[in-house]
Amino acid sequence: QWRENSSWDVDGDFDLAAIYVSDAQYNRNIYFDTSPQAVSLYLLYNHWLPRVLVYFFILVDMSLAVFEEPAVLPLPTWATMLVELLCLLVFTVRLVHYAKVIPRDKFWKDPKNICIICIVLTLIDMIIYGALTATNCYALRWSRVLRPLLLVNVTEGRQLRRAFRSIRNALPEIFYVFLLFMFSVLIFSLMALKLLGKRGLKTMDGSPYFTNYLEIVFDLYVLVTTANSPDVMMPAYNASFIFTLFFILYIFINTYIFMSAFLAVVFNNYKKYLKEEVRQLVRAKRHKMVRAFAVLQERREEGGELVVTQANWNQLVRLVQPDISNAHRELLWSVCDDKNQGFIGKLAFVQLADLLNIEVITLKSRPHPLQSICPTLYLSAPSRLLCRLVQHRGFTIMYDVIILANAVFIGLDEENPMISNSEWVFLFLYLLEILLKLYVFEPRSFFSKHSFWNWFDTIIVVSALIATIINSALKSVGGYTSRQILDIVFILRVLRLIRVVDSIGRFRTIINTLIRIGPAILTFGQLILVVYYIFAMVGMELFKEKVKFYDEDSNDPAKAYCGNPLLKGTTFAQLNYCKNNFNNVMSSFILLVELTVVNQWHDILHLNASLCSLTQIKLSYIVKHRPLKLIKSFKSLKVI
Amino acid sequence: QWRENSSWDVDGDFDLAAIYVSDAQYNRNIYFDTSPQAVSLYLLYNHWLPRVLVYFFILVDMSLAVFEEPAVLPLPTWATMLVELLCLLVFTVRLVHYAKVIPRDKFWKDPKNICIICIVLTLIDMIIYGALTATNCYALRWSRVLRPLLLVNVTEGRQLRRAFRSIRNALPEIFYVFLLFMFSVLIFSLMALKLLGKRGLKTMDGSPYFTNYLEIVFDLYVLVTTANSPDVMMPAYNASFIFTLFFILYIFINTYIFMSAFLAVVFNNYKKYLKEEVRQLVRAKRHKMVRAFAVLQERREEGGELVVTQANWNQLVRLVQPDISNAHRELLWSVCDDKNQGFIGKLAFVQLADLLNIEVITLKSRPHPLQSICPTLYLSAPSRLLCRLVQHRGFTIMYDVIILANAVFIGLDEENPMISNSEWVFLFLYLLEILLKLYVFEPRSFFSKHSFWNWFDTIIVVSALIATIINSALKSVGGYTSRQILDIVFILRVLRLIRVVDSIGRFRTIINTLIRIGPAILTFGQLILVVYYIFAMVGMELFKEKVKFYDEDSNDPAKAYCGNPLLKGTTFAQLNYCKNNFNNVMSSFILLVELTVVNQWHDILHLNASLCSLTQIKLSYIVKHRPLKLIKSFKSLKVI
Repeated sequence: QWRENSSWDVDGDFDLAAIYVSDAQYNRNIYFDTSPQAVSLYLLYNHWLPRVLVYFFILVDMSLAVFEEPAVLPLPTWATMLVELLCLLVFTVRLVHYAKVIPRDKFWKDPKNICIICIVLTLIDMIIYGALTATNCYALRWSRVLRPLLLVNVTEGRQLRRAFRSIRNALPEIFYVFLLFMFSVLIFSLMALKLLGKRGLKTMDGSPYFTNYLEIVFDLYVLVTTANSPDVMMPAYNASFIFTLFFILYIFINTYIFMSAFLAVVFNNYKKYLKEEVRQLVRAKRHKMVRAFAVLQERREEGGELVVTQANWNQLVRLVQPDISNAHRELLWSVCDDKNQGFIGKLAFVQLADLLNIEVITLKSRPHPLQSICPTLYLSAPSRLLCRLVQHRGFTIMYDVIILANAVFIGLDEENPMISNSEWVFLFLYLLEILLKLYVFEPRSFFSKHSFWNWFDTIIVVSALIATIINSALKSVGGYTSRQILDIVFILRVLRLIRVVDSIGRFRTIINTLIRIGPAILTFGQLILVVYYIFAMVGMELFKEKVKFYDEDSNDPAKAYCGNPLLKGTTFAQLNYCKNNFNNVMSSFILLVELTVVNQWHDILHLNASLCSLTQIKLSYIVKHRPLKLIKSFKSLKVI
Repeated sequence: QWRENSSWDVDGDFDLAAIYVSDAQYNRNIYFDTSPQAVSLYLLYNHWLPRVLVYFFILVDMSLAVFEEPAVLPLPTWATMLVELLCLLVFTVRLVHYAKVIPRDKFWKDPKNICIICIVLTLIDMIIYGALTATNCYALRWSRVLRPLLLVNVTEGRQLRRAFRSIRNALPEIFYVFLLFMFSVLIFSLMALKLLGKRGLKTMDGSPYFTNYLEIVFDLYVLVTTANSPDVMMPAYNASFIFTLFFILYIFINTYIFMSAFLAVVFNNYKKYLKEEVRQLVRAKRHKMVRAFAVLQERREEGGELVVTQANWNQLVRLVQPDISNAHRELLWSVCDDKNQGFIGKLAFVQLADLLNIEVITLKSRPHPLQSICPTLYLSAPSRLLCRLVQHRGFTIMYDVIILANAVFIGLDEENPMISNSEWVFLFLYLLEILLKLYVFEPRSFFSKHSFWNWFDTIIVVSALIATIINSALKSVGGYTSRQILDIVFILRVLRLIRVVDSIGRFRTIINTLIRIGPAILTFGQLILVVYYIFAMVGMELFKEKVKFYDEDSNDPAKAYCGNPLLKGTTFAQLNYCKNNFNNVMSSFILLVELTVVNQWHDILHLNASLCSLTQIKLSYIVKHRPLKLIKSFKSLKVI
């Protein structure tokens, strides 16, 4: 498969080896062509600029939903169409670039090229839509549903694709548990119909209770998510407490046992497939490193083993990571060549990809800049006492007490001038703390990349200072207080309080763990975004303007039923849920989040009462995604 | 530590060894005295009869709550007191027996003897209560809270104690996450107060929205359980959709991240401590087997290793498990003595406890009794054809279709004579199936201990037959239909449908797994029973008769507010929740289940509006026990 070259003193070879190493380091899985032109194209392909550009245009493409009908901020159709065309152009360029990099036969087999279909379909849809709107016909932008697929299938969405694959692989087993679960719901519903249907019970609003089989199935299905507990059982309970046994048994079996079974099946499968994926990744990484070795290998003596010399290795590492320091590179070499021979074999070479991924923190004990500027003053007795005071535990405790006092002051009414002036005192104290710390600690290490809390503190305090100054300037000039700036000031003030967490070791550990699982949550966040986006697009096309929100002051009689006569007298209208609609992409997203949080989702669904099919989609959507997220968070959190 | 005896031909020694083996087999951990009297007392102590008696009296003691004030079925105070005295007497006898079995110094150090304190406290309480009621003073039976402790601390509740220990050990770590979680809730509440408090927003019922800090904390705490989503955010959402960001962030951090962190911490700790407990159990088991070996050991030749002969081993096994068959015992011996030497060493002896726990199923291929009675008929061509037909796959499929048809018929209106007569057809078909199977398969293996579904089928079909006959007899005699019998008939009819599950292999696997985790769930069921019982007792003393339920037909104006003026106009009264009260032990349990299921729990808690402290207990109770149960079910289900 790879070229055996004994005379390898060409620059291209180093490039090739560097690409193999860098692919291994970042777990890229692209079977690129090894011809010199393809290699240099591939280098360009992996450059950060085109990658960021693609992500940017995906974002632009997806955020077009904000400006298209039904819009949050309406823009003319030709404007959004033009922007979308531009996005499609960028994606096409990227794809053409990709096609040039990898061999032709590989390109056509690559499942990532669902992108091509998406782009073509979007173009067709845009043409049809343009033609229809030009002739004033009803037109539908159905291809908007395809947009999130770009996010999944673009070459960079590797992690997302992996998550998707894991879910897809778990589906068959989930399906069997789901069937059994549905069977159980149906049997329980039949029993409820027979036991309660003929008793002439009435629900709270006077309608007959448990007389229609399909309604019972729906009610009991909702009960699984506990959203209508205990209302659904109150009529039966009022008749006799024996019937509660039925409901308790139902909740026990379906909510606790079956939902846990879902969780267990998803968790087990996810773990199994993830393990398999990781194993494949490790194998691919090794394979790539072996190829890189084959490019650079040479034979020191006749019949001896193949090795890579230190000089070549250095040149390679310099190509792979240009920003690495000499000291760091020498450290890595000494780890590989532990016998100090000046060359390394295949086994030592292969671990380079992992070594490059290890973060090395260079700790330089630099003297404080003030010490170099005026040493006598900085090293004088009062200055050293100050340093000792600031480094003392008492200093931290004192500031914790100040923060707590500040919390109390924030909670009090800020109309009181004493309270509002105290804010200046607290701001001064916080600034003083930062200045003192800067005096004591070396500024560059204080603001190093890893001191999350120092950065957090300084940014919050400085922005609070700026916002407070702007606010009081506005006030003293025009007697006018901007609500927005005040809001920002309040948020910043409250955020300052979070700092207390850092001074308690146990809490810091928990917070750090939570921060560390951030990337994993982010991947699933993208996944959920994809699902939400698709549902929002479908929902908007189906339900836009079906439910209207009327302002507080509006006197329109339609306000009582959200502008839709079908909703007259429903719980949805009574609970004042009119704003939960699909009238624009923002409302749709918020509505979908509410459905995910589950409670009252059945009331929200009443707005779709006539459209059973979508309800079904939503139901299964909720069922499938709830446990997933749990699992995800659980998996990530067990690190603690 | 143990007696070295070279002349061991005493019966007492066999008893001692048998006790050690049986203790190891059932994981009992009692440091009993090794004197002959104590050993025979210990044998009696472990006999099934006294153990069952103790459990029976614990049940009687706990079920006294049904008859005591506030009672479901009122009994005079002297009657319940007498029964309780009897129970206490039984427990005391059991404890005295226990004290005789184990060495005096061990007895006083045993933490299980919390029982003694419980008994003494209960006696004191009963005396005080008796005296107070005799003088017509207000009296409180506070010692009822202690009753479930007997269930935990009785020597038999080993598994329950282990579960309790695991939870107790996990508490410190949970506590830190809980603190951080509460900190996050408080910070978010402060931010909500500052952002939304001054905007003059109104909730649905016109009261000011988010102006009181403590109310915000409570509302946001409820939001963590998703019980008041999305109502709590609707006023803010109606004002501006920016505020939903605040709520979405809050739900993400507190409901998803922190609740998952709780789950992870509890899961991890539970697993860790359970592993430790199991390790200790295994060590203790080995230790006991070594002791048993030491009692029976003898030296075959001078300087040779210590062994146990087959004769002694046989006598031991006969003592430990009298009901074991000779074939089974010989099988076990041949496993231990795999070299067929006639004696075994320590290593082979130690595994006896585990071997005895292995269930051996004896498969005897007996001919069908009909074959022995009239072989010509049974082996004739038509009879054999019948056998082949019944064993064919088509027979099962045919009956699955019949069951599905039956499901449809059950769902239809049974007033229709055609439908109600069809029931006889189905009953006949089901009976025919059982009879045919009995004709084909050997009855004793058909009704063997492990054929769960055969037993299930037969019992359901036969009882449905009996109930249907009684029902139609009653109907034809007096034209009168008993509602109770009809209910039973309906339940049995629907239960018959479950059988379909057995014929699909995948479903059978899932169901079998669920059945296998039954014992683990039972242990946690006991644990939850203990917690519920304590809360029910406390709740009944505090809230009995505070909320009254009025019959459907009652015209009392107090019906609108459940007989408590404090509840006028609350959601609790509006939703007709009057039956959710603490007026007797049954209602209390149902109420606690509802609280566990979470939804609307904040409305139910309104009934305790004035009693903040208990609310607090409940809240923490819910927080602690929700994840626990999840964990439990999860742990058990991951076997799938």
